[in-house]
Amino acid sequence: MSPAGQPPPQPRVRSTGELPSPRTRIRRLPQKGRYDRATIHAILDEALICHVGFTAADGQPFVLPTIHARVDDTLYLHGSSGSRMLTAMASGTKVCVTATLLDGLVLARSGFEHSMNYRCAVVLGTSRAVTDAQERQLALRALIDHMVAGRSARVRMPNRKEDAATAVVALSLHEASAKVSTGPPTDEQADLAMDVWAGVLPLALTVGVPQPDPLLDTRVPVPEAIASYRRPQRS
Amino acid sequence: MSPAGQPPPQPRVRSTGELPSPRTRIRRLPQKGRYDRATIHAILDEALICHVGFTAADGQPFVLPTIHARVDDTLYLHGSSGSRMLTAMASGTKVCVTATLLDGLVLARSGFEHSMNYRCAVVLGTSRAVTDAQERQLALRALIDHMVAGRSARVRMPNRKEDAATAVVALSLHEASAKVSTGPPTDEQADLAMDVWAGVLPLALTVGVPQPDPLLDTRVPVPEAIASYRRPQRS
Repeated sequence: MSPAGQPPPQPRVRSTGELPSPRTRIRRLPQKGRYDRATIHAILDEALICHVGFTAADGQPFVLPTIHARVDDTLYLHGSSGSRMLTAMASGTKVCVTATLLDGLVLARSGFEHSMNYRCAVVLGTSRAVTDAQERQLALRALIDHMVAGRSARVRMPNRKEDAATAVVALSLHEASAKVSTGPPTDEQADLAMDVWAGVLPLALTVGVPQPDPLLDTRVPVPEAIASYRRPQRS
Repeated sequence: MSPAGQPPPQPRVRSTGELPSPRTRIRRLPQKGRYDRATIHAILDEALICHVGFTAADGQPFVLPTIHARVDDTLYLHGSSGSRMLTAMASGTKVCVTATLLDGLVLARSGFEHSMNYRCAVVLGTSRAVTDAQERQLALRALIDHMVAGRSARVRMPNRKEDAATAVVALSLHEASAKVSTGPPTDEQADLAMDVWAGVLPLALTVGVPQPDPLLDTRVPVPEAIASYRRPQRS
């Protein structure tokens, strides 16, 4: 991969959270590293899911996909209160939460210069169980609104039984970094004359036609937020 | 999430690799668990990237996105020989490789029943460095062909310097599982009369118009595999 096609890193430093820690500093292709809050927030907001990493007692790491939501500088996750992942996270274990957006295949003339254009946010830290009723409510609404903006105001929120079955955990964005790769391939000069197509094939997660629940009353219209669905814009 | 809309699990057992291990057995929503090789292979082949989890010496897990390729029952990954992740993987550390395909937002009438339709493969194991020249060549070609079928036959393969800069690691698919979630939301009976649209908003990773490298000779045509790009079909 190559640094071409993007400006040198100019992290705007506003707080200690915007400076890399020894653990979050991008070592591989450091010119792609970003530590500013706006970039990290935008990736987390656009990505529908993240992948959570935690280590089991026997040292085996696990990586599982889940929905997340960001409120200010806190990332919320939720799941069944019986799940391994949520149990581990609620007990204050070290975790890594990674959200990745694929933007394109970078197709070069040499195999070596093949890569992807992508935006990725990596959050390190120790998660905590969210037990305060008000914070739980905030988090659960944010998780629904992360899927479809404004939807939490329309749906039935959890009853006591559902609430008891749901674990909510929080992770601070204090120790986070992003890596952003853009631009065309950067082949060696000697390869440019090759008779091989080179460029970028753009990629995007797109939505199809909404499929109503077979049990839906056909008089209920498709809301605008679903009919004209789009993820939050990239910054 | 709900078991509706999909058949009960009927894993076809062909080898020990198709039975869950105590670590890969799906505990949460076990009716979504799949252990048959065909399902796991299809998810890994369609997913452009995976997320790799490994644990650093201080116990901090890391989760990083990367390109993968499958050859039979082996998963290959590669990267800079100087990267933390590849160094850890080449030294035979415990890893988890997870590939996730998002198929839809499942929008219910209750917040609790909101979920995603997705297909996810999780591979556990201890990775090994690939040092044999022939296996490295096989893996590097598979990694390029995973991006665009047949492309490795067209591009310039690594020279000695590039080869030395590239670490290749392998992970057996022996201990792997999949989780597949499909179908409409499954709201409580009492919620069905709510005046709230419910259903599935399909999601898919789609390609845009190929963007030629600005340095490309304009006489080089876009190959069919890129002009009519599609991922391997789901099984």
